[in-house]
Formats: sequence, C-alpha cells, structure tokens
Amino acid sequence: MDATPFDYQAVLDQVARDVAPLVGAGTPAEYIPALASVDPAQFGMALVTMGGKVFGVGDWQVPFSTQSITKVFTLALALSAEGGDSLWERVGREPSGNPFNSLVQLEYENGIPRNPFINAGALVVTDRLQTLTGDASSELLKFLREESGNPDVAFDAEVAASEHEHGDRNAALAHFMASYGNIDNPVPALLDHYFWQCSIEMSCADLARAARVLARHGLRADGSRLLTRSGAKQINAVMLTCGTYDAAGEFAYRVGLPGKSGVGGGIVAVVPGRCALAVWSPGLDAHGNSVAGVAALDRFTTLTGMSVF
Amino acid sequence: MDATPFDYQAVLDQVARDVAPLVGAGTPAEYIPALASVDPAQFGMALVTMGGKVFGVGDWQVPFSTQSITKVFTLALALSAEGGDSLWERVGREPSGNPFNSLVQLEYENGIPRNPFINAGALVVTDRLQTLTGDASSELLKFLREESGNPDVAFDAEVAASEHEHGDRNAALAHFMASYGNIDNPVPALLDHYFWQCSIEMSCADLARAARVLARHGLRADGSRLLTRSGAKQINAVMLTCGTYDAAGEFAYRVGLPGKSGVGGGIVAVVPGRCALAVWSPGLDAHGNSVAGVAALDRFTTLTGMSVF
Amino acid sequence: MDATPFDYQAVLDQVARDVAPLVGAGTPAEYIPALASVDPAQFGMALVTMGGKVFGVGDWQVPFSTQSITKVFTLALALSAEGGDSLWERVGREPSGNPFNSLVQLEYENGIPRNPFINAGALVVTDRLQTLTGDASSELLKFLREESGNPDVAFDAEVAASEHEHGDRNAALAHFMASYGNIDNPVPALLDHYFWQCSIEMSCADLARAARVLARHGLRADGSRLLTRSGAKQINAVMLTCGTYDAAGEFAYRVGLPGKSGVGGGIVAVVPGRCALAVWSPGLDAHGNSVAGVAALDRFTTLTGMSVF
Amino acid sequence: MDATPFDYQAVLDQVARDVAPLVGAGTPAEYIPALASVDPAQFGMALVTMGGKVFGVGDWQVPFSTQSITKVFTLALALSAEGGDSLWERVGREPSGNPFNSLVQLEYENGIPRNPFINAGALVVTDRLQTLTGDASSELLKFLREESGNPDVAFDAEVAASEHEHGDRNAALAHFMASYGNIDNPVPALLDHYFWQCSIEMSCADLARAARVLARHGLRADGSRLLTRSGAKQINAVMLTCGTYDAAGEFAYRVGLPGKSGVGGGIVAVVPGRCALAVWSPGLDAHGNSVAGVAALDRFTTLTGMSVF
Repeated sequence: MDATPFDYQAVLDQVARDVAPLVGAGTPAEYIPALASVDPAQFGMALVTMGGKVFGVGDWQVPFSTQSITKVFTLALALSAEGGDSLWERVGREPSGNPFNSLVQLEYENGIPRNPFINAGALVVTDRLQTLTGDASSELLKFLREESGNPDVAFDAEVAASEHEHGDRNAALAHFMASYGNIDNPVPALLDHYFWQCSIEMSCADLARAARVLARHGLRADGSRLLTRSGAKQINAVMLTCGTYDAAGEFAYRVGLPGKSGVGGGIVAVVPGRCALAVWSPGLDAHGNSVAGVAALDRFTTLTGMSVF
Repeated sequence: MDATPFDYQAVLDQVARDVAPLVGAGTPAEYIPALASVDPAQFGMALVTMGGKVFGVGDWQVPFSTQSITKVFTLALALSAEGGDSLWERVGREPSGNPFNSLVQLEYENGIPRNPFINAGALVVTDRLQTLTGDASSELLKFLREESGNPDVAFDAEVAASEHEHGDRNAALAHFMASYGNIDNPVPALLDHYFWQCSIEMSCADLARAARVLARHGLRADGSRLLTRSGAKQINAVMLTCGTYDAAGEFAYRVGLPGKSGVGGGIVAVVPGRCALAVWSPGLDAHGNSVAGVAALDRFTTLTGMSVF
Repeated sequence: MDATPFDYQAVLDQVARDVAPLVGAGTPAEYIPALASVDPAQFGMALVTMGGKVFGVGDWQVPFSTQSITKVFTLALALSAEGGDSLWERVGREPSGNPFNSLVQLEYENGIPRNPFINAGALVVTDRLQTLTGDASSELLKFLREESGNPDVAFDAEVAASEHEHGDRNAALAHFMASYGNIDNPVPALLDHYFWQCSIEMSCADLARAARVLARHGLRADGSRLLTRSGAKQINAVMLTCGTYDAAGEFAYRVGLPGKSGVGGGIVAVVPGRCALAVWSPGLDAHGNSVAGVAALDRFTTLTGMSVF
Repeated sequence: MDATPFDYQAVLDQVARDVAPLVGAGTPAEYIPALASVDPAQFGMALVTMGGKVFGVGDWQVPFSTQSITKVFTLALALSAEGGDSLWERVGREPSGNPFNSLVQLEYENGIPRNPFINAGALVVTDRLQTLTGDASSELLKFLREESGNPDVAFDAEVAASEHEHGDRNAALAHFMASYGNIDNPVPALLDHYFWQCSIEMSCADLARAARVLARHGLRADGSRLLTRSGAKQINAVMLTCGTYDAAGEFAYRVGLPGKSGVGGGIVAVVPGRCALAVWSPGLDAHGNSVAGVAALDRFTTLTGMSVF
C-alpha cells in the first residue's frame, strides 16, 4: 500500500527549498494576540501515506493554532454521529462567494448557511454535533487525539478566551440563525464549544495523521469506519469547492486538491487514495490563506502530478 | 395660542366615521403573544394643541403597546443628554430602503445604521443614552410619565419578556455592531433596556401629550427646553423620511407629516407649530403600519390641509 | 397674494453673502467634458412668488445644464398626461438607500425602480411619457419654455452626445428593466429621449418659474391646471424624500423643503403655497449635490423659517 | 492508451437503464420557443477515450442546442489565442454564489465577473476572443467542427434570433461592464457573437469528441497543442468549481468531475487523463442542470470510481 512511485521525503525537501523565499511573506492573523505574536518565519510540512508512514520537513512537529481547520473534523464527526443526511437540510454545500463571516447571504437565504466551512455553517455543524453528543468540543478533542496518536493535543485556553472576547461577529451569526430557527442549543453554550474547537493546537504531523481518514475513504487509524466511502467523498468535494475561504477557485486552479485552511496559517490537503498532507506557515494572504502554505501545496502537486485535475 | 381655525373635535369625529370601515382590517403583529391577542376592532385618536388642550375619539384613552414609537423619545433624550451632535457619527439620517431589521445594509456600511428608527439605529441610540445616563429605560419611562402627565405609564413585563424570548434578531444586530466597535455597553444589558423601552404601554392621549415637545420646537410640558429649535426640527425631518419603516415615502405621499409608527398599531404625528397627534388601531399593513391609523392621518390632513406639502 | 412678510430680495442678498465662502468648494461633475469645464466660481439664486414676481442674486440669469432636475418636470408631465395613477405600478415612491444608478436594488425588486428620481425610475417615467405623447423630450422642452416664459430654453446637443457616449450604465438599467417587461419602447429610442432631457439648459430664473406649478398646487403659469392639488402634493412629497440622491435625509434635516438637484450644480426647491426657488453653483459634494446650493437653501429656510418642519 | 479496465459500452448501457425513470423529469428551458418545444423524453450519452474511441447510448447522435456548454470552448480558444494570463485580470475564477445572470455581484465587484461561466464572464471571454481573432463565433464554430470531426456542426439561426429577442438581460450585463471599461468591442456586435455561440447544435458524440482536448491535457484531435498542460488543468478546475451554475458544490459532491452544463439539457464532463463524456436530456432542475444528465454522471462515477475525490 505504501509502495508509491515517489520518494516523499525528497519531494518535501524540494518543496521546502522552493518556497523558502516565501516564508515570512504575508501577515499573520492579527485579531487576537495569541496569533499576532507568532514568529512568522516558520514553515513546516508533513505527509502521511495510506499506511500511516509519516514524512516531514521544517517545523513539521511544532504545534500551532489550527483554527478553522478543525471545521473539517467537526463536520466528519457530525455526519458520522447522525449516520444520515439531515444535516444538509440546515447547511448548504455551495461556495459562498462572500467573505467567511458575512451575514448578507445568510439573510437572503433565510438563515441557511451556504456551506459548512464558513463560520455560520460551522456553527450549525457544531450545534448539530452538540445535540447529538452533548459535548461537541470534547468529542472533537478526543477524536483528534486518537487519530493523531498524540495525547498531548489540547485546547489553548488563552486562544479560546481571546476568540470569545472578539466573538461579537460569531455571536451575531449564531443569534441571526437562531432567529430563523436554525440553532437548537443556547447561543452562549454553542459559542463556547465553537471557540474551544478553534483553539486546538496541533502540529503538521498531528494534522496530516488526522486527515488520513479522508484519504482512506472514511477509515480511521484503528481500521474502524468513521464515514461511508460516499461520505468521505462528499467531504472532500466540499473541501475542494469551499475549503479555502473566498479563494476556493484559486486554490482549485493552483493546487487542485481538497484542502482546508485556517487563519493560524495551517492547511490540510487530501489526495484521495494516496496520502494526506498538512502544511503550516503563519503569513497569510488577503484571503486568509497561508502564503507559503498554498505555494508549497502548489509545488507539491506540480512535482508529483497528484492534482485531481 | 389655541385659537385655531379648526373645531378639532368635529374633525376627529369625522375622521373616525370615515375610517370606521377600515378598523379591523390588516393583521395585528403576531410575533409575540401579547400583541397577537389584542382585539383588532379598536380605534382611537387624540390631538393635543400647542397649549395642551386634548381632543379624542374612540379608544383614545386605552393603553396599548407603544413598541417602536418610543424610539422617537429615546432619540430626543439622547440628543438632549449629550447636548451635541456626536451621536450622528454613529448612526445616519438617511432612509434605509430595507426592512427595519435587515443586516445587509449594516454590513455594507460597516456597522453604522442608516437612521435611528430602524432597530439597529435604535440600539445605538439606546446604547448612547445608557452611557450618558446609566439607566436608559428608566430615564425614558420617567420622561414619558412627566410629559403625558400620567404616572401610570408603565413597562409591561410580559411584553418585555416576550420580546426577549424572540430577541435573537436584535441580539444579532447588537453583536454585529459591537464587532464594528459601534456599541459601548455589554450587549445583554443593552438588549434589556431596549426591550423594556418597547414594552411601554400608553394611550393615544398619553402619546399625543408626549409628542407635543416636537410640535413645540423642543419645549417640554413644564416649559423647560428639552431640545434646541434646530434639534426638534431635525427629529421631525428624520421622522418624515424614516419614521414608518420601509413605507416612509408612501406615508409622506399620503399623509405628509412627520410620524413614527409601532407594530402595536400606534402612530404619533406632528404638525410643527400647530399640534401633536396619536392614533391607534391594531391591524397592520404589509409594512407594519396601522391600516386604519395611516388612513385616519390621511383623512386628517385632507380635512384640515395641514400636510407639510 | 404677493403681500409676503419678507423682503425676498434682501433675503437672497443675505444668503449670497453668507455662502460666498463656499462658492467654488466641492468638485464639478467630471464624467462629461461639458460639465467638467464649467467655471466653478459661479453662484446664482432665484425666487418666484405665487403671483409670478421674480427675485434673483448673482448668476441667476446664466443658463446651466439642468441634468436630473428635469426629472421632476417629466414626472409631472407623465402624471398629467395619463390623468391617473397607473405609473405608480411601474415605479415606487420610496427612498432608495443606494446610489442613484445602482442595479442592486432593481434586481432584488424585480425591475421596479424605487422612485422616479433615481435613473432607473426616470427611465420608466420617460418611457411612459413617450408612450403617452409620442415624443417625450419635445413635450418636455415645450413645457419648460412655456412655464419659464423663455423661448430660448434649449437642448444642448454637445451635452446630449456626451451623455450618450458615457451612457452604458443607463443602457444597462434600461435593458435590465426591459428584461422584466418594465420598458415599453425600444431601448435606444428611450435612451435618446432620456439624454436629450438631461441636456436642457436653463437659468435659475427659468427653473424657479417652471417650478412655480408645484408651489401653486398644480396650476400652470397660464392659470390652467397641470396637476390636481393631490398630484402636486404627491410630487412634492417624493421630492422631499427622494430628490437629492442618497442624501435626501440630510437635505430634509438641513433644508426641510421638497427639492430636486442635478449634477450640473442646480437645485430647485418648493415652499408649497409660498414660492419656488432655484439655486446653482457647480461644485458638488460627495453625494452629487451642489455644496453652495444646499448651503444657500439651508440659510434661506433659517432666515425665513420657511422649512416645512 | 485505450486499454482501460472498463467495458465502457456496458457501463453506458447500465447507466442508461438506471436513469431511465428520470428521463422526462424536470422541465425543458422555456424562455425561447426553440428550447421549449423539444421532446423531453430523450436521453443520450457518449464517451470518448484518450485515443479517440467513441461509445454511446440512447440519443447520443441527436444534435441539440449546446447553449452554455460552448463557454468552455470559447474560454479555451481565448486562452490559447492570447497565449498568456491577461484574461484573468478581467474575469475571476471564483464560484459566484449567485444566479448565472445576476448583476448584484458584478456591481459590488466593479464590473469584474466572478468566473468565465456566468453570463457576464462569458461575455468578457467572448469580447477578448473577438479582439484577438476578429470573429469570435466563426472561430468557435471552426474549432468545434474540427475537434468533433463533424463538418455539419452549425449555428441555429432561429435559436440565435430568439436569444437576441430575449437578450435584454445580457445586453444589460454587457453595457454594465462597458460602463466599468471591461468591454472592448461595441456591445451590439459582442452580443451577436455571444448569441451565435449559444445557438450551436451538436450531439453528445460531437461534444465528447470536442471535450477530449481537456482530458488530453491540452492536445487537440490532430495532435497539436491548444493549451499548455497547466492551462488545461486550470480550465478543468474552473469547470469543477463553477461549471454548473449555482449548483457547482452539489455537482462536485454528487459527481466529482469537472463539468459544464447548458440549458439545452446537455453536460460535458472530463476525467483528466482518462476520457471525456457528454450527456443530454432536456428536463432541467431548478438550477438549470439536466435532471437525468446529472444522475447519469453520478451513476457513471459510482460504477467506475472515476470521481476525482
């Protein structure tokens, strides 16, 4: 299963050399102190094969704030927990064409967010997971520890508190959807779970391991099934069309892989049936995606031909 | 001062006869039980002269839920308390062209509401009054009791609780503006004051008396000055262009007076330098304005020629 | 009828002195050469009494490009020609809350413009007048010559040609409404009439005389009736709420009179039952209204107390 | 090259049996007579291998109106003709999140359409091809005849005339972009080329053959290169994220292939490096995509596992 035609370590090394001039470019997220104070001159990348072999380069074992990347795993857990499709009556699967935290489209579409990766959509998914499990953020943390094999994966209380303090926009989104009947749990509790999820710290190695379930068509690290093959395919499709904020078309065009980014500078990407990747560098472009991270994935698909297109 | 050319009582009686077929038309507000259960077959109208003489017809002494009408008085108090113009840096004076509780325009205009009579704008005004006085809703109640001369004017706790329960949209507006830095007080406390204000019960007689300050160019019932002449003129101008939700143009076209409506079915109107009016009938049109109330004011200006146009 | 309490000439002289520091402020319209090349250091103001007596100050007899001001007269002619209300099924009477040439609201409201003074609405009114008379622009010119008593009022062919050359936005509006079935005449012919109307040159004296019909509740210069009393009142109401682009609230707040501005720097204003005014100075504010013109009307209502509020 | 693991004919036969109950479901496009009068009970599907071998089922050789499908080929020709990237300064590559003919987003984004497959974007691409070649529609027809190997591929004059007659919305889009300086050619001529392109009739066999260039990473039927490998990848990426109107996410989710649909009921899809497909059935869903066509592609990727995810 791991007899690939590639010397992955050599590829990662090459990628790291090629994007070195871009490390430090862009601007780290500034809306909370914990993100703004990160040293921008960091870069890491990890790859996990189907069989679980891990390759890495640079700062691939340094934990960072995953932020929106965890939305992918919350979605996977919610779909797994409900074992059905009813979530899709409350959140769409279409690109938004608007900034990730916009209320405009939400109003025109009566409180149904466009997709699970804009903030409004992620709030609905978290709300659903909360209803199904009673403790959405703990379920997520437990899952990420198990898949990464790293029991030290943890919430960052300072980040969660900062998110809360700057959380008026998300509170507005949640109350707004509640006014349309699209939130089941009390808004303050929901926001707590949402902010805890965003605060989780993981390294590229941790994240790539956790994303392997999507490359393996729904099979977890222990071999049990989290998602049906169809469910895993669907999440990959949503990642490709909606996973990188308002630049999903650009990401598809340049990288051509399902991916999900976070404003901490991380990106996970999936080559279905082949491998899972995670990359991290704090400097962001105007859309909120890591400058060196996108470039690294672009180089990776160019060197390996592994784009889905 | 009261030697007017009109027999106001005869005019009100005529108006009441003329609009009788419309009383009961339209639909009472249904979003909270206390409003939905009101008997729609009620109609009252009151007029107060510059000198304080009161005329009335029908149910003009029956208290009803003033709802958004109080926004006019909150605005007057905030402008009076700050004794300046800085409020207008945080809220505009232009008609909105969108429903009263829309978030769309708010997003395009970076958290600055269009005018003080849409919900978002009224939240900003309440926030300002709260900062200036420390107890916005109590200040408003005190003022309305004094101007109406009725110490029984009171909050309705059931209505306030219902508003709170259905208050997700307003919570969304407040948090959204807070995310732009346009709310100074904690959102939950602000919402409390806002909902208490909406819950105040007054009769047409009470309201007409309270609105006299705007007909008298800023002079209160006790002869003291609440607003400068210019300040009173400005509030009247904003009432005319923004006072009746998304139908201000229609109201100007038909009635031609500064006016402010509420979803309880009440409307106050001002003939600057002449008199103040209040009318009430619970059935609303599609824009949220009282069907019989607008018709009564239309008849009043036709019979008296008192339109500003 | 002309025994007014005011020495209008003295008032105009005072206004001119007071606003002199503002003459030249702002920026003339720059989208067509004929407007951009006008000397900005000009200011004129004229007043016509109900009986037809004319007062003037400064450049009150200098012809300038009326631009959007003619929309008022086209509206009056269309309402007069149809002798009914059916026009209001095709155009609203509400303030727009958006720039004068925006397509956004038009799309959300299925091709029905908000009011007759934004470009889209004026196109519908011109379309209606064209259907009713067969030659909308000639009818307008004939009317303006008769009311102003000036047979030299004329189209400016250079301005009309420039408007046409820069007319893509208006062509877009017309085709867009045609796609909703809200334009009856061929778009190219309609645009021709529209651009000719905008090109008409008149002086403040001409314009004030022409606007007298609205101060006289619908009576023309020759004593015949153009509009019912109610029709004239309605046009005045629409002017107050929609007559000065996206600053109608500000204009109502400062001036408090029905008024209509044009990007040539002119404004007409009406004091119903008292007089008609026209003012002109080419420098515009950010909303497209004459800086010195708005200030002059503001001073006029302050000096005379003639605001409707 | 054609030694595939699949018996494609058997797969197509299976797909046709599976979707038979859906043939006739949905509603043919009704805005022009030529489309509305098509017999909805038709279904065809064709597949072309990398080597050029063609398989087909049902009405796979019946010509139908390609409509928006030709936008893919116009884009390929424009990119090929300019041999560069400057087109992307005038049109984006992001999903629109709005209906295909909306002006709203265009206004907020200053006349730059979101992507080349919404009408506004296709008008820009056609404008560019017109500037580069002098005869955009003839260039397209010539290319489609050559790639399909069918010299009978032709414009349908009746369809083009109907499109023109109902073309006010597209005229509005073109004039609107021209007002932002984003159209180089005269609008009427541009619209002619645009409508001619939409009118081209082709069969599933013709279309699949023509789309082979995108499966072959840019190589034409005669072995010459139309696009760089990167250029072909980019078009495929745009097809996946933007190719099926406002349902691209749904299409990615269900089908997982780059595809482009037309309101004639046709869809082309590409499996990069494997094959090209075309399917046709006139009944459309609410988004304007063929009901049986989407279902057939869904079945195809399920049966073959050929989804990119």
